[in-house]
Amino acid sequence: MAEILAIKPAAIDGPVIARLDKGVLRLTLANPPANALSLAVMAALSAELEDAKANKSVRVIVLAAAGKVFCAGHDLKELTARRADADKGKAFFEQTFSACTALMQQIVRHPLPVIAEVDGLATAAGLQLVASCDLAIASHEATFCTPGVNIGLFCSTPMVALSRNVSRKHAMEMLLTGETIDAATAKEFGLVNRVVPREYLNQIVTKYAQTIASKSSLVIKTGKEAFYAQAEMGLADAYAYTGRIMVENMLARDAEEGIGAFIGKRKPEWSEE
Amino acid sequence: MAEILAIKPAAIDGPVIARLDKGVLRLTLANPPANALSLAVMAALSAELEDAKANKSVRVIVLAAAGKVFCAGHDLKELTARRADADKGKAFFEQTFSACTALMQQIVRHPLPVIAEVDGLATAAGLQLVASCDLAIASHEATFCTPGVNIGLFCSTPMVALSRNVSRKHAMEMLLTGETIDAATAKEFGLVNRVVPREYLNQIVTKYAQTIASKSSLVIKTGKEAFYAQAEMGLADAYAYTGRIMVENMLARDAEEGIGAFIGKRKPEWSEE
Amino acid sequence: MAEILAIKPAAIDGPVIARLDKGVLRLTLANPPANALSLAVMAALSAELEDAKANKSVRVIVLAAAGKVFCAGHDLKELTARRADADKGKAFFEQTFSACTALMQQIVRHPLPVIAEVDGLATAAGLQLVASCDLAIASHEATFCTPGVNIGLFCSTPMVALSRNVSRKHAMEMLLTGETIDAATAKEFGLVNRVVPREYLNQIVTKYAQTIASKSSLVIKTGKEAFYAQAEMGLADAYAYTGRIMVENMLARDAEEGIGAFIGKRKPEWSEE
Repeated sequence: MAEILAIKPAAIDGPVIARLDKGVLRLTLANPPANALSLAVMAALSAELEDAKANKSVRVIVLAAAGKVFCAGHDLKELTARRADADKGKAFFEQTFSACTALMQQIVRHPLPVIAEVDGLATAAGLQLVASCDLAIASHEATFCTPGVNIGLFCSTPMVALSRNVSRKHAMEMLLTGETIDAATAKEFGLVNRVVPREYLNQIVTKYAQTIASKSSLVIKTGKEAFYAQAEMGLADAYAYTGRIMVENMLARDAEEGIGAFIGKRKPEWSEE
Repeated sequence: MAEILAIKPAAIDGPVIARLDKGVLRLTLANPPANALSLAVMAALSAELEDAKANKSVRVIVLAAAGKVFCAGHDLKELTARRADADKGKAFFEQTFSACTALMQQIVRHPLPVIAEVDGLATAAGLQLVASCDLAIASHEATFCTPGVNIGLFCSTPMVALSRNVSRKHAMEMLLTGETIDAATAKEFGLVNRVVPREYLNQIVTKYAQTIASKSSLVIKTGKEAFYAQAEMGLADAYAYTGRIMVENMLARDAEEGIGAFIGKRKPEWSEE
Repeated sequence: MAEILAIKPAAIDGPVIARLDKGVLRLTLANPPANALSLAVMAALSAELEDAKANKSVRVIVLAAAGKVFCAGHDLKELTARRADADKGKAFFEQTFSACTALMQQIVRHPLPVIAEVDGLATAAGLQLVASCDLAIASHEATFCTPGVNIGLFCSTPMVALSRNVSRKHAMEMLLTGETIDAATAKEFGLVNRVVPREYLNQIVTKYAQTIASKSSLVIKTGKEAFYAQAEMGLADAYAYTGRIMVENMLARDAEEGIGAFIGKRKPEWSEE
């Protein structure tokens, strides 16, 4: 459609396809069948996320995947090949996990909301991606696991994100057994917000994204940043901090406009920034 | 009824009505239709909470509201009017959010348990009141939202309380979309303890309150204070701290009486304090 | 069966019975009817947990109980008797709560996973045992409460474990009312992982335990330790820490073996340690 603006020509799409439509940037992992997080994929995803910060047209990001696997985590073959290095792979492993932990924090620290659209298996660092997003919506066919324990590599970095989404006993069950949970269980655990029929998944995610895209970007950015910051504080510090945020927010143009519009029963017009 | 002791003559009731019955102090927001938290309402509620500390007859507090809206949050007209101030309202906004964050912490730090009785819409700082209470019981008609994002003012202070009650994905869904959840969803999220038919709401809340009022006030005070304090500590510190609390509690008169009564199969008689 | 190795002759079993079968050490509280945590029982349980660390044959621990009560918490008669001491029991109370908080942390810090098998009432420090285990599986007949408030002794140490398993409103409801919840509610709250028919409880727990016992002990130990450590950190610290853990884990023999086996589609052979 004419409204779709490709951020770059489709001809040079890498392992992550970026498409922008009405303020919603859709980033699709396109490295099937596993959509594994090789260094190249992580770099591509990170670059797209960084680009989105500079693009004023982007208001919400959706993270999706091509194929039956949302993301199978790290690229085990890439990792294993580097055991032949002089340092037995140590430097490469450091590079990999450094890139991974930076990527996950980039999502959390990103000024724009990021919604995971999950229509398949999300394992290990793939599950970590879902848990790191602000929201996650899954099809009934989506499944989730932290299977590292089965291959001698405990999902220690994925559990950082997992344990900030689900309760301890649920996290430990997934981590210790490595077993797969279905979408309904993931919703019960709090890992995903909604489970919907596959044929409506994209439509429902887009509706969420457009709802959020209709808000003031400045306000969303302020709120998202404050959310994760206050989550790490004690109650008194959290209130001192967010109290200051509220005053600043009240003094910003979009609060004046939004509250004025609400009182005047008209539609607000947000600032472009 | 003769047993009802009005703390002050009904004739001088302000925007918060206080009624004491059998140890249960019922504070009713009585500023309909919105029960907005203007400075005056926050001051009145805070004063009632403070008075309750000094009144030995009060053992449990119930926070309720008159009308169809439990509480719609801050008074947007009051806030907006002060944009005409020389400082564009900054000092007044600081005063408002300072009063609000102090009020919410006053509930959490209050020596007496506070139960929210919710029979209508609780939004923004109104939802924050519910989340700040120790327990919350709602009717099927109760609804909840953090709609600040719709008016350009992210619910940054409400989310401090919200995110200490519900999981991250649930909190972010409410905060980013601003959409309203029903009472059943609020229960599923962990924001309220029970959802009951409207016609039994008051009766059920009163039963909870009287159950708790029948315990030792000293013990409840000790436990509530320790609960929120340990929640902010690491495991080792939390155990060192609560271990000391347990020893002190064992040496207090009410533990000797309570354990003695339990072993002797008789009803305990708690100290007045 | 020949495969059952008694750690010590059954003739000298104390209040905790230890039986090892196929890597699963079953510790049974055998001090019915209350299975109270007297100093002697806590010492016996702690000693068994310590012994298990040194026994390379033990890979998973199951904590169970004989009789209809899983564990009724501290021994109130033992505590009460010491009120006759010159210091009114203070030194003994300190010893008791010091032993209790050390025991609970011993479970959390234990290198082996600990699974609670609950087929009856778990109250106060008994509930704390369940909450302190990595996983908990209960029969439909299991019940849970923190009834200290009824006897003038708030469950301040149990709530450390409870509040790290369930949400605040749920924890406060249990703590303030002292009322008993059934197994289904405990599952809804996140206190137990599964609720199963009594006649299959042991079989299902054993299946969980053997599944986990089939993993690399080194990897499980690494992961469990990292899980509870990162849970107390902010996001950036948690990722810095677990990123290092992942690199170390990749360089360990069991990851090389496990990943190699996965790629080679064969069964891994874990190191003995």
